[in-house]
Amino acid sequence: MNTVEARLHERGWEVPDPPSNLANYVGAVQTGNLVFVSGHAPTKDGVLVFTGKVGSSVDKETAREAAALVALNCLGTLKAALGDLNRVCRVVKVLGLVNSDPSFVEQPYVIDGASEVLVTAFGATAGSHARTAVGMVALPWDISVELEMIVEVTS
Amino acid sequence: MNTVEARLHERGWEVPDPPSNLANYVGAVQTGNLVFVSGHAPTKDGVLVFTGKVGSSVDKETAREAAALVALNCLGTLKAALGDLNRVCRVVKVLGLVNSDPSFVEQPYVIDGASEVLVTAFGATAGSHARTAVGMVALPWDISVELEMIVEVTS
Amino acid sequence: MNTVEARLHERGWEVPDPPSNLANYVGAVQTGNLVFVSGHAPTKDGVLVFTGKVGSSVDKETAREAAALVALNCLGTLKAALGDLNRVCRVVKVLGLVNSDPSFVEQPYVIDGASEVLVTAFGATAGSHARTAVGMVALPWDISVELEMIVEVTS
Repeated sequence: MNTVEARLHERGWEVPDPPSNLANYVGAVQTGNLVFVSGHAPTKDGVLVFTGKVGSSVDKETAREAAALVALNCLGTLKAALGDLNRVCRVVKVLGLVNSDPSFVEQPYVIDGASEVLVTAFGATAGSHARTAVGMVALPWDISVELEMIVEVTS
Repeated sequence: MNTVEARLHERGWEVPDPPSNLANYVGAVQTGNLVFVSGHAPTKDGVLVFTGKVGSSVDKETAREAAALVALNCLGTLKAALGDLNRVCRVVKVLGLVNSDPSFVEQPYVIDGASEVLVTAFGATAGSHARTAVGMVALPWDISVELEMIVEVTS
Repeated sequence: MNTVEARLHERGWEVPDPPSNLANYVGAVQTGNLVFVSGHAPTKDGVLVFTGKVGSSVDKETAREAAALVALNCLGTLKAALGDLNRVCRVVKVLGLVNSDPSFVEQPYVIDGASEVLVTAFGATAGSHARTAVGMVALPWDISVELEMIVEVTS
């Protein structure tokens, strides 16, 4: 087991097989040393696990778990694209999208669930990232959290 | 006619002149081999064609047509910026923004209308892209769909 | 005083110290010649200045001021990251996120407040940028405007 996955395993997190895309796009595209990862959903074994709007039908703790699961799914896609997650030398940018009731304002708390996975996986330096966390009126299939990210990889 | 535009023409799609920007920014910026394309609207000959929220006043089929039109407008801007669309060697990333009723959850279906234009234009390899599709509570001028994208170009 | 800050000062704008991050991420990450700047808020001296939804509790003129303040905060983060804002050779891309009532459609007018700061700071060529402006159902801490950006820097 490589070190990225070992660090995640210590926390009880496993990198899944990449989720299949449910539309006309691919999970990740590399250009130069950057890999752009598509928006991912909180699925497990192909099933949507977390749906509903945060702040009304879903509470923030549950949404934070959803964010962690989405981060793992992004890593699953990256592992399939790169062969080895240890090729990631920096998480550059995360966009965290929270399916939000209009009154919900704790998107950063929710997306911290994803950031924690990334910092655990890659360490405090390579795992620290720029981030934007926002509230969405609606997300595909009513998922509670969606994430996209950009990572830098070794040549 | 170059090959990108010829492939689009076979499907009945034409690359328009670039839409004029309606605010204080430019349509595309190149940095290194990447071109960042601004958020574009479903305009035709300078007129907004598709407005209204998807899932309430606009149905998903109409929104999918809107997404295709927005993709063509992005290509119009890219053509003006690059001189020749054949310089695009990869569509890297698409962000698809759907003006959504809170209950609408088929954003991927809508944005597939844009992805289809891109895959037609550049082919299955260069045209396939990472993508995020989300629902927005409001978009400029009440447009139904907005798209931004990142493409890689030859030096 | 360097030229970027001098140009801003002529307009009455000052580059603040970088705002502290309120969650598990960093303010900016450089990869190659690009710097990805995190989503920033309209804070001043650590206090949220502009909150509420635009189009209902906040008017568009006030929101435009908020956008200018957020742009200055982004520059504060960039200055801290780069040492000197004159290292910015191009503003590449701005994503402008407006906390919007569902009926509000003038996001470009609001985000022009940020673009004006950037064009003032870096001049008409280096400061001109690709841009997307959209309406969000909710933003962290109910801020009225959030901005993220990508800039290119000299090596």
